[in-house]
Amino acid sequence: MKLFGYWRSSATYRVRIALALKGLDYDYAPVNLLKGEQKTDAYRAKNPTGLVPTLATNDGAMLNQSLAIMEYLEEVHPSPSIVPGNAAAKANIRAIAATIACEAQPLMNLRIQQYLKNEGGFDDDAVSAWLNTWPANAMSAVEEMLSRSAGDFCVGDTPSMADCCLVPQMFAAERFGIDTSSFSKMNAVYERCQQHPAFEKAHPLNQPDAPEQ
Amino acid sequence: MKLFGYWRSSATYRVRIALALKGLDYDYAPVNLLKGEQKTDAYRAKNPTGLVPTLATNDGAMLNQSLAIMEYLEEVHPSPSIVPGNAAAKANIRAIAATIACEAQPLMNLRIQQYLKNEGGFDDDAVSAWLNTWPANAMSAVEEMLSRSAGDFCVGDTPSMADCCLVPQMFAAERFGIDTSSFSKMNAVYERCQQHPAFEKAHPLNQPDAPEQ
Repeated sequence: MKLFGYWRSSATYRVRIALALKGLDYDYAPVNLLKGEQKTDAYRAKNPTGLVPTLATNDGAMLNQSLAIMEYLEEVHPSPSIVPGNAAAKANIRAIAATIACEAQPLMNLRIQQYLKNEGGFDDDAVSAWLNTWPANAMSAVEEMLSRSAGDFCVGDTPSMADCCLVPQMFAAERFGIDTSSFSKMNAVYERCQQHPAFEKAHPLNQPDAPEQ
Repeated sequence: MKLFGYWRSSATYRVRIALALKGLDYDYAPVNLLKGEQKTDAYRAKNPTGLVPTLATNDGAMLNQSLAIMEYLEEVHPSPSIVPGNAAAKANIRAIAATIACEAQPLMNLRIQQYLKNEGGFDDDAVSAWLNTWPANAMSAVEEMLSRSAGDFCVGDTPSMADCCLVPQMFAAERFGIDTSSFSKMNAVYERCQQHPAFEKAHPLNQPDAPEQ
């Protein structure tokens, strides 16, 4: 398999964690978002969304959207599972993942922030207020969900697709100045994940396209 | 099962289609978004996101997030499948669903439009430009995905979770004045779905909380 992605992209980071939790080897092909490489015809031929990541499978399929890619990995490499448990537990895992992927991240990514500034006339304070409203509200919902489901990880004591989404979300929240100080459950899970070798392997700063420290 | 939702909510509409495609009976409990019923403590006890829909299962679990609920229905009631095919086909279905649920809908829902107007100083033209940039870009990617996968429906000739997401997206795009005239594949699938009894049953205007025609 080959993963086309970017070291700091949340969606790429999710998939890297899922691959590492499952112990799967893959080649990594950096797509430099700052240079606009995701917008080229060559990249769009692989992934019509013009977003990262894309996963090229061993069968030659080109898969896009992090949630869909993680579900694919679960289908094809079911063990260890990243959606474990009974149907209700699986639904909890997917609901946490979807709250992050559908409610938090889309409203905080860099292209949206840039549009708000450049086209919408938002100053830095207005962007900060936006970030501390929409993504923060979604994260607050996730905090409440974790208060009902978390053990060592987001749902129980096994790392899952929910943690694959939570960790990049916390990393991005730090980067963009979202106040996470009241999210004690999320911070506890985030800290525990940082100690886990799969999460460490997937960390943005440990990727070949990350800048030198 | 009991579905807590709102007639015009895209996410509720998705789940209604999935339930109808699977031929599942359920009670329907309207949550009036205009009256803010989704923000009450009573509702948030069911669903911490304060969003619709919520599905109460026969086992008493309260599920949230439309993508997670549709996956739950697929797990518990696998036939007829709304994620049919081999692993790559399933990934295509989920990628189309996620592009709509993660890239298009979050950037067009009413609370975001209201914030842009009330807090961001956007006038109607600026909101229209926003809608015809972000949700429209995501829909353009879906159009390209359909050009690679569509038969009678989004992926092949069987209605799937992708169609459960596409139809509410097209309905909402019409409502909010997003130009869909260049999306010929999406329009063809949308029209075909309108003729399908499950999609007709799930239509917003056919719900008990819809205004009288």
